[in-house]
Amino acid sequence: MSIIVLGTVALDSLKTPNGIKKDLLGGSAAHFSMSARHFTLVNLSAVVGSDFPKKQITMFKNKGINIDSLLVKKGKTFRWTGEYKAEDLNTAVTLDTTLGVLLDIAPTVNEKQKNVNNVFLANYDPDIQLDFLNTLNKPNFVGMDTMNLWIYTKKKSIAKLMKKVNLLLLNDAEARDFTGQKNMLKAAKLLISLGPQIVIIKKGEHGGLLYSKNHLFALPAYPLEEVIDPTGAGDTFAGGVMGYLVKSKKINAKTLIKAVLYGTIFSSFNVQGFGMEKTKNLSLSKVHERMTIFKQFFKF
Amino acid sequence: MSIIVLGTVALDSLKTPNGIKKDLLGGSAAHFSMSARHFTLVNLSAVVGSDFPKKQITMFKNKGINIDSLLVKKGKTFRWTGEYKAEDLNTAVTLDTTLGVLLDIAPTVNEKQKNVNNVFLANYDPDIQLDFLNTLNKPNFVGMDTMNLWIYTKKKSIAKLMKKVNLLLLNDAEARDFTGQKNMLKAAKLLISLGPQIVIIKKGEHGGLLYSKNHLFALPAYPLEEVIDPTGAGDTFAGGVMGYLVKSKKINAKTLIKAVLYGTIFSSFNVQGFGMEKTKNLSLSKVHERMTIFKQFFKF
Repeated sequence: MSIIVLGTVALDSLKTPNGIKKDLLGGSAAHFSMSARHFTLVNLSAVVGSDFPKKQITMFKNKGINIDSLLVKKGKTFRWTGEYKAEDLNTAVTLDTTLGVLLDIAPTVNEKQKNVNNVFLANYDPDIQLDFLNTLNKPNFVGMDTMNLWIYTKKKSIAKLMKKVNLLLLNDAEARDFTGQKNMLKAAKLLISLGPQIVIIKKGEHGGLLYSKNHLFALPAYPLEEVIDPTGAGDTFAGGVMGYLVKSKKINAKTLIKAVLYGTIFSSFNVQGFGMEKTKNLSLSKVHERMTIFKQFFKF
Repeated sequence: MSIIVLGTVALDSLKTPNGIKKDLLGGSAAHFSMSARHFTLVNLSAVVGSDFPKKQITMFKNKGINIDSLLVKKGKTFRWTGEYKAEDLNTAVTLDTTLGVLLDIAPTVNEKQKNVNNVFLANYDPDIQLDFLNTLNKPNFVGMDTMNLWIYTKKKSIAKLMKKVNLLLLNDAEARDFTGQKNMLKAAKLLISLGPQIVIIKKGEHGGLLYSKNHLFALPAYPLEEVIDPTGAGDTFAGGVMGYLVKSKKINAKTLIKAVLYGTIFSSFNVQGFGMEKTKNLSLSKVHERMTIFKQFFKF
């Protein structure tokens, strides 16, 4: 059992009420891998520049992440600089984006990995997501994420891609922007009608909603007193969800609920530290400890 | 087992994306009663004007609500006119408030009801809430709600009252305004330090959070495709919570979780119709039906 994730591996710089950080390891595929690796072999497909720190590549290897499809290309690594303001820690304000090598080349799949049939298309240009999916030999279970930029600029490409995915993960603002629906259940129903069998709408500190033709459920977030840095929370959530589903090999009410539960707990750790501070060395037993507390909420 | 609720009985007029309504039965005590009555005898303490429709008084009686402390005073019934806009169905915009008889007299307690020891002080001027509490002989379990107006104008009175209550219910905006804390868990901790043993923060469509020295839990709202009119949702929630706690006679993790669960389900019905359309004739078996669906969300 393994999964291949297409996404970014980035160097993030942050301004937050809790401090300023420079060149933290980030990116959608990196955050995704950090939680998914607990359940399945993760094959990471991304492009970084020649300035990308070697110790981070070693770190991926040490975590058991397959980096055969991590291209190191001459040039600069994708860098994102963002700010979180005290008034709204949920919303990032982008201060600067340096695409670097992402302008030159799209991630590819190593020949040996083309048979991997579980796929996660983390946030990326939807045309590249689609091309990537098409290079795989037999994608069987496909998840995807997207972002507001692509909804505004490439909605048709997203719609085309959506027909080919099983699980769509997006946040509430994106669901609203894509469907024009303010009600999240209506938005989820509309999204389902466009292709994916399962839609999960992430609501940050307010938890999440899962909808499919046969399932509907909602979970709160794990209540935290302090959010240090929400960057990557959605990708960490996705890694928990997809990783657990791949491991459990079947999709039913029980595995879906458990998957969302893992996503919820993994992402609660992610936001408690800068970058991957809290997820990089996280053990599954720590995850289960917090899960046990969380489950107590629902002992009716 | 019985409870006395101090609050308003009002005539609400509404402008919503789903229609315009005039002189709907409303008010905090009325909405509270509509859910609490399923668990315990509710004694309603409020003031209405001579224009208050007799059929509504009969309705209260028919629902088993004791109206010995419902004063009918010469003059006009309290009227609230509000608007909900499609962009944000959670937030009411007040268009007009006619206090009417509320300017002349505060609700009182009928002599026979002074020994009732379960009390809910629904949203009202905190000085009147405090006076009311002081006229009771042996209040034992006291819940309260408040609103932004009193937080801005009478914060000290609220703080004085808070020392005397066991359970504080308020919404997230109020918790933020009162404490200056954006993090709801931090806000709840701060509120607990001011007197109440239990704090429940209501987050509308995002569910709620309960905090005490010994308990912490969060629940999502019941996902609904359509919200018709959220007026009174918080009071309906409070009625479910307080009513169930009075009925169960003890406060522990199990009864608190169940109480919040009832509050959640009752308020989900409330928002599906104008005024009390959906709660007036609601049966407990319908509540349990929806509760069974909701509980499936948490079958991990």
